[in-house]
This record gives sequence, structure tokens and C-alpha cells, in this order.
Amino acid sequence: MAFVKKVLLKNKTLKIIDFSGDYRFDKVDMYEHYYNVEHIDQKNLNKFIYGLPEINRKSIAKSQYIANPGCYPTSIILPLYPLIQKKLIQLDNIIVDSKSGVSGAGKKANTNFLFTEITDSCYGYKAGVHRHQPEIIEKLGGNVNLIFSPHIIPATRGILSTIYCELNEKITYEDIVKTLKDYYSKEDFVNYVDFIPKTTDVTRTNNCFIHAHYNKQSNKLIIYSVIDNLMKGASSQAIQNMNIMLGLDETTGLMINNFYL
Amino acid sequence: MAFVKKVLLKNKTLKIIDFSGDYRFDKVDMYEHYYNVEHIDQKNLNKFIYGLPEINRKSIAKSQYIANPGCYPTSIILPLYPLIQKKLIQLDNIIVDSKSGVSGAGKKANTNFLFTEITDSCYGYKAGVHRHQPEIIEKLGGNVNLIFSPHIIPATRGILSTIYCELNEKITYEDIVKTLKDYYSKEDFVNYVDFIPKTTDVTRTNNCFIHAHYNKQSNKLIIYSVIDNLMKGASSQAIQNMNIMLGLDETTGLMINNFYL
Amino acid sequence: MAFVKKVLLKNKTLKIIDFSGDYRFDKVDMYEHYYNVEHIDQKNLNKFIYGLPEINRKSIAKSQYIANPGCYPTSIILPLYPLIQKKLIQLDNIIVDSKSGVSGAGKKANTNFLFTEITDSCYGYKAGVHRHQPEIIEKLGGNVNLIFSPHIIPATRGILSTIYCELNEKITYEDIVKTLKDYYSKEDFVNYVDFIPKTTDVTRTNNCFIHAHYNKQSNKLIIYSVIDNLMKGASSQAIQNMNIMLGLDETTGLMINNFYL
Amino acid sequence: MAFVKKVLLKNKTLKIIDFSGDYRFDKVDMYEHYYNVEHIDQKNLNKFIYGLPEINRKSIAKSQYIANPGCYPTSIILPLYPLIQKKLIQLDNIIVDSKSGVSGAGKKANTNFLFTEITDSCYGYKAGVHRHQPEIIEKLGGNVNLIFSPHIIPATRGILSTIYCELNEKITYEDIVKTLKDYYSKEDFVNYVDFIPKTTDVTRTNNCFIHAHYNKQSNKLIIYSVIDNLMKGASSQAIQNMNIMLGLDETTGLMINNFYL
Repeated sequence: MAFVKKVLLKNKTLKIIDFSGDYRFDKVDMYEHYYNVEHIDQKNLNKFIYGLPEINRKSIAKSQYIANPGCYPTSIILPLYPLIQKKLIQLDNIIVDSKSGVSGAGKKANTNFLFTEITDSCYGYKAGVHRHQPEIIEKLGGNVNLIFSPHIIPATRGILSTIYCELNEKITYEDIVKTLKDYYSKEDFVNYVDFIPKTTDVTRTNNCFIHAHYNKQSNKLIIYSVIDNLMKGASSQAIQNMNIMLGLDETTGLMINNFYL
Repeated sequence: MAFVKKVLLKNKTLKIIDFSGDYRFDKVDMYEHYYNVEHIDQKNLNKFIYGLPEINRKSIAKSQYIANPGCYPTSIILPLYPLIQKKLIQLDNIIVDSKSGVSGAGKKANTNFLFTEITDSCYGYKAGVHRHQPEIIEKLGGNVNLIFSPHIIPATRGILSTIYCELNEKITYEDIVKTLKDYYSKEDFVNYVDFIPKTTDVTRTNNCFIHAHYNKQSNKLIIYSVIDNLMKGASSQAIQNMNIMLGLDETTGLMINNFYL
Repeated sequence: MAFVKKVLLKNKTLKIIDFSGDYRFDKVDMYEHYYNVEHIDQKNLNKFIYGLPEINRKSIAKSQYIANPGCYPTSIILPLYPLIQKKLIQLDNIIVDSKSGVSGAGKKANTNFLFTEITDSCYGYKAGVHRHQPEIIEKLGGNVNLIFSPHIIPATRGILSTIYCELNEKITYEDIVKTLKDYYSKEDFVNYVDFIPKTTDVTRTNNCFIHAHYNKQSNKLIIYSVIDNLMKGASSQAIQNMNIMLGLDETTGLMINNFYL
Repeated sequence: MAFVKKVLLKNKTLKIIDFSGDYRFDKVDMYEHYYNVEHIDQKNLNKFIYGLPEINRKSIAKSQYIANPGCYPTSIILPLYPLIQKKLIQLDNIIVDSKSGVSGAGKKANTNFLFTEITDSCYGYKAGVHRHQPEIIEKLGGNVNLIFSPHIIPATRGILSTIYCELNEKITYEDIVKTLKDYYSKEDFVNYVDFIPKTTDVTRTNNCFIHAHYNKQSNKLIIYSVIDNLMKGASSQAIQNMNIMLGLDETTGLMINNFYL
């Protein structure tokens, strides 16, 4: 934030893709509450576009400044956005249980993430209070009652978000599947798949795989969404944004390891 | 089932602890539906007591025949039973997202569970249709709308069940904590803990650790419950049942590795 | 062998890269002894070139038929070949202790390779009697007293071969390093490195990293050699061979993930 | 060392089991060279007995002060000591290639031992210069030309030492096996086994399993020796020493998880 503020004073032509959360929010109070810090560059905040290409592609193409999305939000917004936009699911009871590999914590000298501590270990943390929760809610329109509940699993890469929600009246499971398939039918990286995806299905790719399941007895829709947290959840999504900003083919440099597509 | 049926015809004094699901259910139609098999020993069904000692201790002590609980149900019924019994939580919207190590699948020659397939991999399966779902619902009283959604994580041992539910009117988070603490205050193996437990906190023990968290914004109660699926979820729970049946000290042979208590 | 024999009768122009051990040996008796099978296509045996490009590049370029090397031998022959060719090390006492990830065993339904069996586990097998031992010895000239001792480690990919040998009279450690550096100075995939390499340094690449260490007290030369067993140890080496056979740039398709070079 | 020195001035009756290397050596110059520190308590050095019970049991029973052995040396001295004592193997060419789980590095905030760094990774380090090398050599009599070459594998617990050596003239493989079996026939924790042991065969026990293999072609004896580095390699061996010092049954508290014996 401090760096970007200084740079933008000096150089008007630079293109920026920011990996931090500093320019992801429209509402600065949300940011300040969850990040527990004062936003010192509010002037530039609205110049930044939230860099989720499948949802904001046109704005990204016209923008110089991109806020690259968080890893968890990418896996959650992609399946939910089309369903909420089309009013297919109820907004007052969405539960997101995410499982993440430990590379999301970065390469810090922290005994919590030693091999001996993580092996065979699984635990939840920050349910409802993680910094990614307001990012998810804002990008889904703001008026959703959603709880985001992350967990660490003994893996290096990968996020699986399991999403529980309910259908609106008269909406069927088929409507859900058709909407997701249609919305992503022309996308290179986001796909509705007919099987329950594993995190390893998208490892080292820029892909997001989505699958929905309906349980009649409990009237619950269960959505599985997987990404590689270091790729579509971070660096390769930044490259996708760069490609769009620069008018390049969006897949440039991103088809490596992409054996499914 | 076939074996037990034959044995019970010949020998009336034998004590039996059955690891299968065959004698866990009161309602045979539930069993037959989820296990997709005809129950051929209905005559003996009601002689078996569901072997969850913290809930059925007195019946277990008087019984000759025990149906040892499933691993997932153990981790889920233990935290929910006291809350439902005291009418503290709503029954119409309970979501259970469980994460299990792969030893739950047994030692079968199945390429799905090879080291190379499981490493770094996480996926869901059988949400709402797993055999343990009716077991959980029946033992919680039958009239709960609960979806059970299991996942495989790249670990050998351990189950973490993350449970999402809502408080009844006028019930506070403090009521929840107090109830769980009180209910398990005299138990050797089931404990309410003041931290979010990891699966590795109970590895190789007969313990179940429970922690509850309340998120005001979404009005959701989140309960974390961890067990070792091969211990409290299977073999050491059977030993606990045996100890009770035989009038031994309930902890006999079970305090190994029990460093917390 | 049976398939190749039949194919070669019908089609003289086909190019073949064989992954099996069937055409790797000059001496058929060696093959028959270690593979415990009769060689039924001896007529074609000498048409095949052993596909280790850094040693046989010219022959590969002129050949239609390649025997792709074994994974262990690739990691062992690459460091030893230049040293033996230049007579720098003693031939009568070479010990090779190799550590391999479990993907080398293939994707078979075998309980020995389940996640639960391999996690935290390490063991040796077939010291001195593994099929790769005669392959290593033959390609190093035949007159070496070398014992090959493989081990399984709880990893998916990667081979580390630790080689113990002794310098010839008047040969110095500097001679060893210079020879290895010179021999591989123009190679894209095989490199002498100034640090002790980890298996993960070459994961998902066609690289082999070699480092030598000398211990004065015991007069032992210790050589560390790492490859990815599925890449330089198998499929990407086959592509390298194909590139050479077809007159393509040798690195075509092989620089993916090659961050070091 | 500083602490022990001070304590022994004040209290003559205290019994001490020291986990460090400070009192393991007879020769202080060896210690000072490899540990790169001055020994400031040489006066007490010879009061300490090297705490390998299967070799020094009688001295341990009479001693107040024990130097608990290093983890690697325990796995290496146990198989070699009886063979060297009986003059069965050549002393001028012993190679020890050890593989250790990462718990040997302790619980330090070091990025080298993060889950993400260790997973799928294998590498050697400090061949011939590790602090455990002089400990091994001294306890084997001093006049052995032995190189100790340790490696890290992606496991939590366990050491496998693979030892390569040669038979003395007229000595047979049968002599080796008989000697090892006889020497350890009455031991509770050290066993010659008829299979190649895995590190997981002794996990969480005080056991050491030894197996020898002979390769005629190269005239090499290969010995596999496995321990749990945190148990027989550290804490449970200390308890075994304590039991002996206190005149208790040597197995007191140590048969937990000991399913083999």
C-alpha cells in the first residue's frame, strides 16, 4: 500500500498487479476491520479492478491496476457467482468448508508448519473471522449470510472448498448444473466437471474444477470446487490477468501441465 | 450377520462386540436401504446395544451384545447428543463436514489408496448417501435434518468433524460450552477443550476432543470434534466396551499414549 | 519383445523407443539370468542403441531403435561413466546406495504401496540382485566390481543415488570435479552442481544434478546424483531420444519446469 | 557440560543421564575437533559410561553417570560391535549409509524443515564430517576405517542404516548370522530378524532390528539396521539405562507398542 501509493505518484503508465489484500475491497471499513490496519491510499482504491478474469474480464482489459484475488475467495466465488447472479440459491445460509495445503502459509520459519507438525494433522482455524471472508461476501454482492471456515490439511498444494447451500423455490438441480456449465462453457480454465474433483486434478495448473451434488433428503446443494492455491489461487491467475491487460492470448504461458483440457 | 446368527443359536453365554454395521440400527429398513442388503437376523437385532459408552454406559454394562459404533458417527454423535438432548440447537439445519485419514478404507489392494494417489490429494465423497448418515441420525433421535459429508485427506489416522448448526432461541454460546463441559466432566476419554483440536492431538488414544466456536455475524455454531478413527473410532472403543461389559475399570489398557489427561 | 519382434518383421521404417529392459543388453546371458526369461528376439538385439544421450548421442542420432535406460542406471551411469573412461577411480570397490520414490513401482493394486504402508517407511531391497545391476555394470565397461543397493523412501518422485568409491593413485578431488564439469559443460540436462542436490531440485524436469565430495580420512569419494525417476529416468529421456532421432532440437518440449538452467 | 560440572560439585549422590555428546568420548581431542568447542569438564569425563545397554550393561549398572548414545551411532554400533569383537569383518573399508526421518533435527523454527520443503525430498549431508562419526569409530575400537554418510528422508521418525563391509578370510555369511543371533539372543530390544526390516517395524518402540545379506559377486556384506530415532535412538534408551541404574526390570515402561516380541 505504502509502496504502491509512492509509485503511482511518480509513474502514470506503470501497470500493477497487486498480490496483497490492500486494493481488493470497495468498502474500506471492511478492509480496515478485518486487516486491523488503516488504509493509507484510499484515493487509488477505486482504480483497482478485482482480478477474477471469468467475472471481470472486460474491466481487467481496460484497467492498469489489478488486485489479484485471494486463494480461498477464487475457489469460492467462481462456483457461487453465477448461481447468485441468476438467483438460483438462497442467500441466508451458505456454509463454506475449505481445506488447504500448507503452502498457503508461505515459507516462514514457523514451528507450526514443520514437517513433523503437519504430517497426519488436520485442523480448522478462524471460522467466520478469516480475512478472506469479507472479500468473498463483497464480491458475491454483499447481501449473503455466508460463513467461511478454513482448515489445514497435510498437503503442500491445493484448496478444496466444499460449499453447502439451498435452492430457491422452483429451482432444480438441473438448473444449477446447466447454469454452471453454460457460464463456464467457453472458459479455458474454469470447468464444470461430471465427477467429484480431487485437488490433485488441478495441481500445477491455472484450472478451477467445479462439481455440484444435490441431496434431496436434506434439501442441500453441495458444491465441490478445487484449485491449486499457488496457481489459480495466486501466481498463474496474475499471469492470466497480465495477459488480458496486455491484449495477449489469455492462455499464454498457462497451458503447462494442463492435461485435462 | 450370518456368523453371529449361527453362533447365537449354539452359545447363549458368549459376549459379542460386533464391528460391522449389522446390529447398529433399531430400524431395519434404514439398514437395508443404506447397506443394500437384506437383514437376515432381525430376531437378534434388539439384543444389541449401540456401544457408545459415554451415552449408553448403563445398558452396555448389562448387555452381552454390543454393536461397536462407526468411526465417523462416534466423532459426530459425541458433541451433538448432549446439545440435542437439552434442546439447545436447531434440528432442521445441521451440516457435518468430516475429514478422514485413509486408514478408514482398510488395507485393500486398491489403486485409489496408493501412496502416489493419496499424497497431496483431498476430495469429498458420498455426501448425504454414506452408510454412516442414517446411523448418526438415528442415534441423535431421528428427527434431525442433518447432512453428513465425508472427505479423504492425505493422512493415515484421524477424523476431524466440523459441525455447523444454529442455536435455539434464547440459547447462548455459554450455554453450549457449559453443557458440553458438564456432560463430559467426569469422562476419561471425551473432553471439551479450550483450543481448536488437531487430529494429531488424539492420535493413538481413545480420546475425543471437542471445541465449540460461535460466529455472531452468521449466527452459526461451529463444533470441531477429533478422534483417531482406528482407536475411539474402532478398536479402543471396543476395548472400552469390553471393560464395561466385564466390570473392569473402564480405562484398563487404554491410557497408553494418553499424555493429555 | 514378442511385440517388437513381430512389428519389425512387417515394418522396416518404424522408429521404436522401448521402455522395457529387453533390448538394453549386449550380453543376452546377463539379460536372461537377471530377468529370468529366454530372449526370443536376439536377432534384433544389436540393432538397438542404449538411449543415454549424453553418452551415446551420435549413435542415437543414426539409429531407428532405442532401448530407453532404466531409472536407477541413468542416475548412476551419468556420474560414473566419465570418471571410469578417464581411469580416475578404482574399479574394484564401488558401492551404490540408491533411494527411490515409490512411483517407480508403477500403479499396481499392491497393498505394499498403499499410503498407509509407505508413509514414514524406509527399507532396502534386492541389494546386488536387482535387474538394474547388470545394466549398470555392462554400460560402465563390464569390468567393475560394483554393488547396487536400492531403497524405497516415502516419496512419490525422485531418485538419489549415493555412490562410494576410491580415487586412483595420483588422482585428486580436483581432477574428479574438473572431469565431471568438463564432460557435462555443454549439456542441457546433466549438470555438475556446487551444492549437495536434493531430489526435489530436479522434480518434473529432465535434469540430472551431480555433486562430488571427498573424505580424506577414509579416502572415499562420495558422489550424489539426483533425477526424477519418471522424467530423466523414463518418459522425458525417451522424448530426448526421440528429438535426437528425428533431428529436432534436443530440448524440444523438455524445458518445462526447468527453473535452474 | 557447564551445568553438569556445577551440579556434580554440589551433589555427589545424584544420578545423571546426559543426552548431549559432552560425555560420550574417551578422547577429548576427538570431541573438541568434531564439536568445535573446548571441553571444560574433563575431570568428570571418565566417570560417565556410554549408555548402550547391550554392550555396557554391567558398567551401566554400577555407574551413577551415563552418556546416552547418539541416534545414528546406536543403529550402527549395535550390528557392528559383535562382528568386530569376533574379528569377522575387515576394518579398513566400512561404509555406512544412513537414512533418517526429520524429527532428528528437533523442533526448531527452520525453513529447511517445513512440510513444503521436506515432502518428496531426499538429500545427503555431512558425509565423513558428522559429529556422530567419531562416536561410532571410538566405540567400535578406534582402528576402523569407516565413513558415516547420513541422509534426510521425508519421514517423521525412524533411522535405517545400511552398512557395507567385507568378510575376513575364511568367514562365511553363516558365521555372521550366527554371531548376531547369538549375541542378541537374550536381549529384549535388539533382534536379528530373518527379513529386511522397515523403519516402521520399530516405530514407537525401544527395538533395534538387524538383518544381514551377503552378495557373493561383489563379496560384500550388507547389514540393515533400523531403530526409532526418538526411542532407542534417544528417550526410551535413556529409560532403559535408568532401569538398569536403579536395579529395576530393564523393560519397565518400555513394552508399549512392542507388538513383535
